[in-house]
Amino acid sequence: MSEFNAINQRKQDHINAILSDQAIDRQQSGFDHIQLRHCALPELDFAQLDSQCTLFDHTLAFPLLISSMTGGSGAQLEKINRHLAEAAADQQIALAVGSQRVMMANSDAQRSFAIRRYAPNVPLLANLGAVQLNYGFGLDEAKRAVDCLEANALILHLNPLQELIQPEGDRNFAGLCAKIEQLARELPVPIILKEVGCGLSAADIQRGLNAGIGWFDLAGRGGTSWSRIEAHRASKSQQQALGLLFQDWGYTTPQALQNARPFQDQARFIASGGIRNGIDMVKSVIMGGYVCGVAAPFLQPALQSTDAVVQTITEFKQAFQVAQFLVGAATTTDLFLNDALLVQP
Amino acid sequence: MSEFNAINQRKQDHINAILSDQAIDRQQSGFDHIQLRHCALPELDFAQLDSQCTLFDHTLAFPLLISSMTGGSGAQLEKINRHLAEAAADQQIALAVGSQRVMMANSDAQRSFAIRRYAPNVPLLANLGAVQLNYGFGLDEAKRAVDCLEANALILHLNPLQELIQPEGDRNFAGLCAKIEQLARELPVPIILKEVGCGLSAADIQRGLNAGIGWFDLAGRGGTSWSRIEAHRASKSQQQALGLLFQDWGYTTPQALQNARPFQDQARFIASGGIRNGIDMVKSVIMGGYVCGVAAPFLQPALQSTDAVVQTITEFKQAFQVAQFLVGAATTTDLFLNDALLVQP
Amino acid sequence: MSEFNAINQRKQDHINAILSDQAIDRQQSGFDHIQLRHCALPELDFAQLDSQCTLFDHTLAFPLLISSMTGGSGAQLEKINRHLAEAAADQQIALAVGSQRVMMANSDAQRSFAIRRYAPNVPLLANLGAVQLNYGFGLDEAKRAVDCLEANALILHLNPLQELIQPEGDRNFAGLCAKIEQLARELPVPIILKEVGCGLSAADIQRGLNAGIGWFDLAGRGGTSWSRIEAHRASKSQQQALGLLFQDWGYTTPQALQNARPFQDQARFIASGGIRNGIDMVKSVIMGGYVCGVAAPFLQPALQSTDAVVQTITEFKQAFQVAQFLVGAATTTDLFLNDALLVQP
Amino acid sequence: MSEFNAINQRKQDHINAILSDQAIDRQQSGFDHIQLRHCALPELDFAQLDSQCTLFDHTLAFPLLISSMTGGSGAQLEKINRHLAEAAADQQIALAVGSQRVMMANSDAQRSFAIRRYAPNVPLLANLGAVQLNYGFGLDEAKRAVDCLEANALILHLNPLQELIQPEGDRNFAGLCAKIEQLARELPVPIILKEVGCGLSAADIQRGLNAGIGWFDLAGRGGTSWSRIEAHRASKSQQQALGLLFQDWGYTTPQALQNARPFQDQARFIASGGIRNGIDMVKSVIMGGYVCGVAAPFLQPALQSTDAVVQTITEFKQAFQVAQFLVGAATTTDLFLNDALLVQP
Ligand SMILES: Cc1cc2nc3c(=O)[nH]c(=O)nc-3n(C[C@H](O)[C@H](O)[C@H](O)COP(=O)(O)O)c2cc1C
Ligand SMILES: Cc1cc2nc3c(=O)[nH]c(=O)nc-3n(C[C@H](O)[C@H](O)[C@H](O)COP(=O)(O)O)c2cc1C
Ligand SMILES: Cc1cc2nc3c(=O)[nH]c(=O)nc-3n(C[C@H](O)[C@H](O)[C@H](O)COP(=O)(O)O)c2cc1C
Ligand SMILES: Cc1cc2nc3c(=O)[nH]c(=O)nc-3n(C[C@H](O)[C@H](O)[C@H](O)COP(=O)(O)O)c2cc1C
Repeated sequence: MSEFNAINQRKQDHINAILSDQAIDRQQSGFDHIQLRHCALPELDFAQLDSQCTLFDHTLAFPLLISSMTGGSGAQLEKINRHLAEAAADQQIALAVGSQRVMMANSDAQRSFAIRRYAPNVPLLANLGAVQLNYGFGLDEAKRAVDCLEANALILHLNPLQELIQPEGDRNFAGLCAKIEQLARELPVPIILKEVGCGLSAADIQRGLNAGIGWFDLAGRGGTSWSRIEAHRASKSQQQALGLLFQDWGYTTPQALQNARPFQDQARFIASGGIRNGIDMVKSVIMGGYVCGVAAPFLQPALQSTDAVVQTITEFKQAFQVAQFLVGAATTTDLFLNDALLVQP
Repeated sequence: MSEFNAINQRKQDHINAILSDQAIDRQQSGFDHIQLRHCALPELDFAQLDSQCTLFDHTLAFPLLISSMTGGSGAQLEKINRHLAEAAADQQIALAVGSQRVMMANSDAQRSFAIRRYAPNVPLLANLGAVQLNYGFGLDEAKRAVDCLEANALILHLNPLQELIQPEGDRNFAGLCAKIEQLARELPVPIILKEVGCGLSAADIQRGLNAGIGWFDLAGRGGTSWSRIEAHRASKSQQQALGLLFQDWGYTTPQALQNARPFQDQARFIASGGIRNGIDMVKSVIMGGYVCGVAAPFLQPALQSTDAVVQTITEFKQAFQVAQFLVGAATTTDLFLNDALLVQP
Repeated sequence: MSEFNAINQRKQDHINAILSDQAIDRQQSGFDHIQLRHCALPELDFAQLDSQCTLFDHTLAFPLLISSMTGGSGAQLEKINRHLAEAAADQQIALAVGSQRVMMANSDAQRSFAIRRYAPNVPLLANLGAVQLNYGFGLDEAKRAVDCLEANALILHLNPLQELIQPEGDRNFAGLCAKIEQLARELPVPIILKEVGCGLSAADIQRGLNAGIGWFDLAGRGGTSWSRIEAHRASKSQQQALGLLFQDWGYTTPQALQNARPFQDQARFIASGGIRNGIDMVKSVIMGGYVCGVAAPFLQPALQSTDAVVQTITEFKQAFQVAQFLVGAATTTDLFLNDALLVQP
Repeated sequence: MSEFNAINQRKQDHINAILSDQAIDRQQSGFDHIQLRHCALPELDFAQLDSQCTLFDHTLAFPLLISSMTGGSGAQLEKINRHLAEAAADQQIALAVGSQRVMMANSDAQRSFAIRRYAPNVPLLANLGAVQLNYGFGLDEAKRAVDCLEANALILHLNPLQELIQPEGDRNFAGLCAKIEQLARELPVPIILKEVGCGLSAADIQRGLNAGIGWFDLAGRGGTSWSRIEAHRASKSQQQALGLLFQDWGYTTPQALQNARPFQDQARFIASGGIRNGIDMVKSVIMGGYVCGVAAPFLQPALQSTDAVVQTITEFKQAFQVAQFLVGAATTTDLFLNDALLVQP
């Protein structure tokens, strides 16, 4: 199997694993332990509620980003990204594509990422694995990734746990900071440093800041577990056991937001990982998430249709607005970093 | 369906939902986590125990209020209120009726609220939704509501969550404070500001005080969940999901009593929401509830007979008195705000 | 049914309830949350371990008291007390009889309490309900109770919860302190003030001290629940519900030992209520129990034979000594109030 | 049955009990409540990770010791130790043998301990019960134990709980410290003082230090429960009950590591008891374990083959290295006592 075919097949395997094993969604984000202050007299008109925010010079209807999931060669992968893009455009929210490494190996895969035509007016985010900078990728690949979807920013994802569990994983993370710094200097669009389900630590954020990064996607534990997904792909029982052993490794998203707190005046943070409804989103914004990333809950609808994705987006939006109203916040800005809206335990 | 018929049908729907789904009573009030100080040598004669208190110039046998539930056109709704009123009179406790909005739309519904004839000597409380002040109601409707049952006070209920989940909900809560203030100045009887199962916050109470309100019914989370009730009424699955998502939103009643604590010298507070027995009542009074409101546990008996309601009242009373005796409190006043009766964790 | 027959029948009912409903033993004493310091190098010889203590001028093999349970007219009740007495004598531990009120109503019942002949050399404790001092009992009855078994002390039990749940309960606890004080002055043997499963509070102990009492049996919550026992005896469903509602009322035995702590230099405390093995006993002694009372675990063996009771006593003793050895305490005195043996959480 | 046969049979009984009752492994070590700091940007190359450490002048591939388990006369016992030794040699980790008391009673048993030929270049540890110093053993036996496997050190195990539950247990632990001190002075190799599943206390460690001991194996609670194992061997139900009652006695391994903390500059500590994977190992090293001992997880593989043991070792190693990488520690030294790697609760 060529490298291209291997990567492409892997993407399919990941999707199959998620669809077949409910426990990949760990349901341990911890958001349920956080309580919001109810306001019985909000002095607001629900019809006037303003939930908008601005992301990379685009206005979003509410602070939602569909997080990086997929892309590659094949009808199904193309369909997923098209449905997501059309729905994002329709609902005026942001969208990120999955890792574009596959399209560097085979240009057939490009088409699935070329989604700007479906979503001309919303933020679109490109995606590459940061570790690939140690395996031959550089400014050139980054530019191609961005250009392919006329992206507003490039996500560089950090997934050390996944790489270690994957038999074919790329495990040399040494010297990455310097390479990220150089790329950040040279790339015309901003870079977002992102985990994939273990959360960023304060030290990670500090390193990113030192490398000139101004955006971070925290992608905490408690939602999709990549370690468990890789356990499904493992052929040897030892590898499977390893994947399960590490399935709950890392910071939850609320913990990661705590990690980010001291850096709120130096960077913007995307809250993601285990966000499952609009209440989780409101909590995330209050704790410092500038926008909220959600991945797995959009996989099933994306396989179905643009309408199904729109439907899921409106569910998030309705719940977001009900919670926003009930804490008495007229605007998203009234939520952001407003600790007074949390009930202290 | 006329507006009247719609409101009337809704009342019926609510009752059916409660009777068919036990989980509408969330059983999460948190009272069980509060421990009372046992007194083995109470130096009291149970026969001499004084559990009385005074509410709106009436003496209650013990601090119980049957909280607002229903009223409207139709034999069943009339029967419920009559059973409640006769039992309240018999047992010398207070009673509130459900929202009287329905009788403004159709005077047929008035009869079900005209319960003063069944209960001449106990406090009776009228009820309207505060948000209706933004939808055409004013002093006139308030007076009609009060007059209909010669009420001792008018409850204005705040139910933003319910209105947001209800497809037909009234969602403009802007500018309510000023209207409440005006009504409080003009209405001859006191106004009680009340939640319906999410609890009042300190900010809500402060706003009420600023508007001249001297009585609050905290109506906290943990008992009847209106969000879950509305989920039953929803026709679309998305609306159902929303109702379930918010079913545990808000402050528990013990939390709401904490919220009220700093205002105890400026107002009186009714503890309600999830109070399920006389022990919960004693805890509520200790934490600052001047009287205790209970709704859902009286629904089934009220459908049955006056005797069944009397029976339920005496169950609450027996348990209240046993607990009062066992903490060594000769009078209800000995309980009120007496922190020494709580075991500190 | 005569008063005598009623009391006698009640005793039988209690035993039947305990034997038929395992949940009467609440298993919520909380002892399991307390951790003892393990000592791997105890520098002790198990064969030399000294577990003795002195109670009312008798030496006990280890600090165990079989707590008050029964007595009355009838072969079974006599048998129980005889088996307990013979085993207590054999194993050199203390024994208390159940309430002797029954023998005041009918002298037939005396025989079951006249157990000194079976246990000439161990502490035997008489028992009456303190509240009976408000119902005609006085020095005379107290003396008869003590004399009947040549008791070393008289237990006056305080059981307000039980009396309130019992339909036929004696509920006037007013003015008891003065009567207890007078009795304590006049009775030739010491009085032990005792709860029956709700624990004594600091206020109770202070009142007892003021009345001249020097011994307290804390009898906390978490073991036998009298409220639940009375629920079994209730004929009306309302009374049953009341019994179940209060089944977990009161202080656990560890809490009651905390209540007693400030008074340790003014009185002696018997730890009891939910003590189910020798480890619980060691914890109790460390927390300030001078001896440990155990009731329900001895009921079944007592119905069987003296040997069965001996067997149960030796189980408690073995576990007590293993735990004593493993915390490195050569003597019972090394355990008493020795906080250093508890792992601080 | 001769003493020799009795001891030998006992070893077999222990193994059978463990193989037949999964609950002997208590799974309550508490390691899961400790959270490690995830590092998304470790700046490490997995291929360059250094997990080595030095133990008794030997370099270990990673800090693993297979803890004392068995030895004695008979093909199975010999096979176990041979498999363990060959795998330890192959994987470059340390190995301890089970108690060698049996070989003092019958020299037939010596062969099973003579494992140096299978593992010439790794640390091998001899093992005797400390309490045997009170039952006739002394320098002579200690030397024979060490010489038999050319051991690098002698483990003296302290198992007071096991001895008390065992009907035939040796229960005189008095005066042991002085004897240990003398042995430590005279024996040419270091002595390691070790528990067997209840953990060492600070007082135990202090006593050991006073006796000149420089190595401790903490062997905490939460993994193999010897009290429960002995319950299986008990013939009388009373003895069985005692074994079960004490099955969770003692300090967990994390607690024992806390106990050891103040002594870290005076001695070296082996963390053991309930360590079940490489994540537990990393946590243990961070909390002060110089190496990590694991016993029960190796029993089943050891019965099977050298390969099976190798396989289990590599599972521990893989997980250890993944966790080491993910906390960003280039070397084992970077882990040791590095509190910054723990998420504070
Ligand atoms: C099917 C699938 C594919 C994913 N692929 C990528 C990827 O290529 N790049 C990336 O940065 N994250 C990827 N992720 C991670 C998500 O972007 C996200 O960080 C993570 O799933 C946590 O969010 P969730 O709990 O809402 O799913 C993927 C997630 C899923 C479910
Ligand atoms: C059937 C039913 C109808 C209710 N209708 C009203 C109402 O019309 N107005 C109002 O203020 N509260 C209404 N409530 C709310 C109750 O008054 C109360 O605040 C809430 O149910 C919490 O108390 P509970 O847990 O004891 O039921 C209703 C409750 C029930 C169960
Ligand atoms: C069958 C039975 C009868 C009892 N009768 C008495 C009694 O007459 N007087 C008394 O002071 N306590 C009585 N008790 C209470 C016990 O003495 C003890 O305080 C209580 O049961 C808590 O201990 P336990 O959890 O070990 O059973 C009785 C308990 C039992 C189980
Ligand atoms: C089968 C078996 C036999 C053991 N025999 C001994 C022994 O002879 N000497 C000793 O010091 N510890 C002995 N132990 C205790 C272990 O060395 C270890 O301290 C304990 O089992 C806790 O570790 P674990 O939870 O990883 O099993 C034995 C353990 C097992 C499982």
